[in-house]
Amino acid sequence: MTTEFVKNAVGRMIPTEINGQPVIPFQGPHGYKTSGRKYGPPIRTCADYPADGDKRMPDLRAALIKAGLRDGMTISTHHHFRDGDLVANQIFDIAAEMGVRDLVWFPSASFPCHAPLIKYLEDGTIHHIEGSMNGPLGRFASEGKMRGVGVLRSHGGRYQAVQDGEVVIDIAVIAAPTADPFGDANGLTGPSACGLLGFALADSQYAHNVIVVTDNLVPFPCIPWQIQGNNVDIVVEMEQIGVPEKIVSGTTQITKSPDRLYIAELTARFCQAAGIIRDGFSFQAGAGGTALSIGNYFGEIMREKGIKARFARGGSNQYLVQMMEDGLVETILDGQTFDLEGVRSMRENPNHVNTSPFTSYNYHGKGNFASMIDVVILGATEVDVAFNGNVVTHSDGYLLHGIGGWQNCLFGKTVVLPIPLFRDRIPVIRDEVTTICGPGELIDVIVTERGIAINPLRRDLIEATKDSGLPIKTIHELKEEAERICGAPQPAQFTDKIIAAIKWVDGTVIDVVRQVKK
Amino acid sequence: MTTEFVKNAVGRMIPTEINGQPVIPFQGPHGYKTSGRKYGPPIRTCADYPADGDKRMPDLRAALIKAGLRDGMTISTHHHFRDGDLVANQIFDIAAEMGVRDLVWFPSASFPCHAPLIKYLEDGTIHHIEGSMNGPLGRFASEGKMRGVGVLRSHGGRYQAVQDGEVVIDIAVIAAPTADPFGDANGLTGPSACGLLGFALADSQYAHNVIVVTDNLVPFPCIPWQIQGNNVDIVVEMEQIGVPEKIVSGTTQITKSPDRLYIAELTARFCQAAGIIRDGFSFQAGAGGTALSIGNYFGEIMREKGIKARFARGGSNQYLVQMMEDGLVETILDGQTFDLEGVRSMRENPNHVNTSPFTSYNYHGKGNFASMIDVVILGATEVDVAFNGNVVTHSDGYLLHGIGGWQNCLFGKTVVLPIPLFRDRIPVIRDEVTTICGPGELIDVIVTERGIAINPLRRDLIEATKDSGLPIKTIHELKEEAERICGAPQPAQFTDKIIAAIKWVDGTVIDVVRQVKK
Repeated sequence: MTTEFVKNAVGRMIPTEINGQPVIPFQGPHGYKTSGRKYGPPIRTCADYPADGDKRMPDLRAALIKAGLRDGMTISTHHHFRDGDLVANQIFDIAAEMGVRDLVWFPSASFPCHAPLIKYLEDGTIHHIEGSMNGPLGRFASEGKMRGVGVLRSHGGRYQAVQDGEVVIDIAVIAAPTADPFGDANGLTGPSACGLLGFALADSQYAHNVIVVTDNLVPFPCIPWQIQGNNVDIVVEMEQIGVPEKIVSGTTQITKSPDRLYIAELTARFCQAAGIIRDGFSFQAGAGGTALSIGNYFGEIMREKGIKARFARGGSNQYLVQMMEDGLVETILDGQTFDLEGVRSMRENPNHVNTSPFTSYNYHGKGNFASMIDVVILGATEVDVAFNGNVVTHSDGYLLHGIGGWQNCLFGKTVVLPIPLFRDRIPVIRDEVTTICGPGELIDVIVTERGIAINPLRRDLIEATKDSGLPIKTIHELKEEAERICGAPQPAQFTDKIIAAIKWVDGTVIDVVRQVKK
Repeated sequence: MTTEFVKNAVGRMIPTEINGQPVIPFQGPHGYKTSGRKYGPPIRTCADYPADGDKRMPDLRAALIKAGLRDGMTISTHHHFRDGDLVANQIFDIAAEMGVRDLVWFPSASFPCHAPLIKYLEDGTIHHIEGSMNGPLGRFASEGKMRGVGVLRSHGGRYQAVQDGEVVIDIAVIAAPTADPFGDANGLTGPSACGLLGFALADSQYAHNVIVVTDNLVPFPCIPWQIQGNNVDIVVEMEQIGVPEKIVSGTTQITKSPDRLYIAELTARFCQAAGIIRDGFSFQAGAGGTALSIGNYFGEIMREKGIKARFARGGSNQYLVQMMEDGLVETILDGQTFDLEGVRSMRENPNHVNTSPFTSYNYHGKGNFASMIDVVILGATEVDVAFNGNVVTHSDGYLLHGIGGWQNCLFGKTVVLPIPLFRDRIPVIRDEVTTICGPGELIDVIVTERGIAINPLRRDLIEATKDSGLPIKTIHELKEEAERICGAPQPAQFTDKIIAAIKWVDGTVIDVVRQVKK
C-alpha cells in the first residue's frame, strides 16, 4: 500500500488516510464547512436500568465486562487529575489480564504517570493513542514505536470530534471526586477534588457506555451534577482515584526569572498601550510562570486605572482567584482548576463558573467563548517568521506536548505569545516551525526579552503602539538577533514514518509529525 | 383513504397512522424497545456566527425570517410562563402576516392565554398542535375543528420525542427572563422571572434554529446558564415576555374544602401506615390544593418522628420551600416553579436545584429521577376499576388538560391518587376511563373521602395497612358507593373522528381522543 499525500493550506504534505480513515486537509482557519449531522448515540431505555437508580458494580473489572470490553474498542478518560491520575492505568491492566487487544486510548490528555502504558502499546493491548502525549508516551511515539498513528486534538477539537462522530467512544471511564449511585458527579468535593469535570462532558454525552468511578460516594442526589447520571451506565467505588498533591500542577507559581518577568511586564505594557486593558475587558492567561506574572501586571494596571474585567477565562489558580476576590474580575469562566484555591473558589463562589470544551472551545457550535475574549496569552515551543506556532514538538523533533486549548484560544481578539528568544541556546523563532499547530494569521504579537514583533496583518495594533516607546521590531529582526547569539539552528531530522497527526479545530489535518531520526 | 386500526396492550383501538406518520401501539409500560439512534441535528460552525458573540437581531420578525420561517415548519415554545406567556401568540401573528401556512405548533403546554391562536388554526396558518391543550384550544380540537390530529405527550415524552427525532423542531423560540447577547439564559432573575427553563432544554439542544427572546438582557456571561448560548442562533430583546402575576399558577393555595382536607389527611395517614414516611425518604406532590395539603401533613408527621426527606420533587411552591428552610427536606429537585417563593429559593439556595425533563422524566435515558421517588401524589379526572387513569378528558369527552409529568411520575415506587369520589355529581371511578393516559398496573392507591382502594397487585401495601384502622375498600365498593349517590354515569358520546393521540412515555400510542358528538 502506498500512501498518497496532498498539500494543505499551510503548505504541509498530508496523507490522504490516517489509521485507515480518510483525512480532510486543513483549508485555512475558517475554510472547511461540513453539512453533516451530530453523532446520534444509541437510544437507551429506563427499562434496562435499575428503577431505584443504584447502578453500582463491585469493581472496575466487573464494570468493564458489563460494558462489553472487547478487541478494537475506543476507551476514553479525562485528565483533570493531571499527573495524579490513578484510574487510566488500571483500565488497561484489566484489559491486558483479560487478553483484550488493539484498543484505542482516547484520553483528553496523558501525563508522565501514564508511562506504564508503554508496555501495553508494546504488547498489543493498546493499538494507539488519540490525545495529547505529554512526556514519555510522546517520546515513545516519536521513536516510531507505536503501531497506529497518534491523533492530537485541541480540547475543543476533541469535543468536536466526539460530537461529530469522528471518534465513537465505546467505553468512557470518568473518574469523579464525588458521585452518587445514579452516576451524577462533580469534581468539587471529596479527597480527590479537582474542581470540575468538563473534559469528560463529551464522553458522558456521546459514549455508548459510561462508567463513573469515584472515591467519594454520596447519597442521591449529588449536587451539583457536572456529569449527569442520566448519561451514566455504571458506577464503581474505588479506594482512591487521584493523588491530591499531583492533581495540582507543578507549574502554577509566578516566575522568578528576571528575563521571564521582563517578558511579562513587556506583555502587560503592550496590552495597555494597545488599549486592550479597559473597563469590562476580558482575558485568558495560562498557568505557566510567565502567564501568571502577566495576570499580576494586569491587576496592577487595573487597580491603577480603577477598572475591572468582566470575565477571565481560566485555568484558575490562586492568583486569578485573588483577583476575583479583590473585585478586579467579575467572573471566572474556568475550564481546569490548577490549584486547590481554584477548587475552593469554584465550590464557594457562584461567579467562578465551571465550563466545558463545549461552551468554551467547540468550533462546531453556534459560536463559543474563545472568540469573545479580548486578549489571550499563550505559549509556544517555536514560532516562525510567518507567525505560525508550534506547541507539540521541540526543535529536536520530539513530540512531547499536547495542544490543550491553544488552537481554540487563537480565535481570541488579540493573541499574544510571550516567549523567550531562545531556550537552551536554541532560537525559538524559526524560518519554519517544526510542526504547525496554528496558522500565523491568527497569531498577533510575539513578545520576547529583546523586543516585540507584531503580525503585519494587525495594522491596528501597529498603529496603536507606534509611539509607545516599546521595543517593537520585525519578526525577522528578532530571529536575526537570536541567531547572532546562538547561531542558525539545524532543522530536526526525521524518517518518512508518520507517527502523529495534528488536527485543526474543525477536524481537518494541519500537520503531521514524523519519527525522529537518531 | 381508509384508516386501519389495531388493538393496543390496554385494549384501545389505535390507527396505524397519525398525521401521515406511522404509529407504534402501546405495548405495556415497559414493553417497547427501540434500536434507534438519538437525533443528530445539523453540525454548525463558528464561522457562521459573530465572533464577538453578539447574536442580537432587532425584533422577532427579523429573527424568524433569518431562521428561515416557511410553510410546514414545526415551531416550539415552552410554558414556564403558564397563563402569562406573551411570546407564543406573537410568533403566529408574524407568521400570519407573512402568509406562512401549515405550521405545527409544538409547545410544552398551551394555556387559555393562547386562545387567540384559534384564528390561525381556522385560517390555515397553524395546521395542528402537538402538546397539551389546556382549556379553549382543547375544546376547539374536541369539536373536530383542528385540521391535523393533536398529539399529547408527557413532559418526559416530549423530551423523548425530540431526542429520538420523532419531532424535528425547525425553530424553537425560547422566552428567557434573563439572557446575554450570546444566548446564555436563565429564568432566575428579571421582571418575568419564572425560576427555570427546563421545558426548553430539548428544544435548545435539538432544534435546527434557536431564538432566545428576553426582556432582561445582561452583558455576557449570563450566570448561571440554564440554556447554553452555544446552542442559540439568535437573540431578540422585547419589552415584556411574560405577565408576572399570571406566571404564578392560581392553583397554589392549600385547599379549604373539608372533603379535600380529609382526603389529604387520609393520604398522609395511609403513607405513614404503609411505612413510606421514614428518614431519608423522597416524595413528589403537585401544586393543586389537595396535594399541597398532603405536603403539610407529611411535614407534621416528619416533625413528630424527627425525620427528614432526602429530596422532594417539585413543582415548587411556598409550602415546599418552607419545608426545606425548616430542615424537613434536604433537596428540592424542581421542574417548574409555581410561585415566586419557588423562584426566590431556586435563586438563593444551591440545594433547590433546577431540573429538566431529561433528568427527571425521559424514559429513553439511562434511568431517570421519577422511578427513584418513594411516593408520588397525583390527580386524575377519572380512574377505572382496573386502576387505569385519565388526566386529559372530562367525562363529557372534552379534551381540556395536558398530561404534564403525570405519566412519568407513574414510575414512582408508590403512586397515590387522592381524588374526590365524584365531581359535580359525576362519579370519578368508572368501569372504563374515557381516555387511558396511564395503565392501572402503575397506579397503586386511590384515596377518596369515602375510603381507600389499593391495587390488588400491591399485596405489600395491602398487608402493611390491613390493621391500620384506615377505611380500606375495594375499588368496586368505592365505585358502587358513588353510583348509589349519583346514579350510574353515561359514557361520553363521540363521532368516529380522531382529534388527538395520547402518547406513552416511550413514543407509543396508548389511546386516542375522538370528536365529541353534540
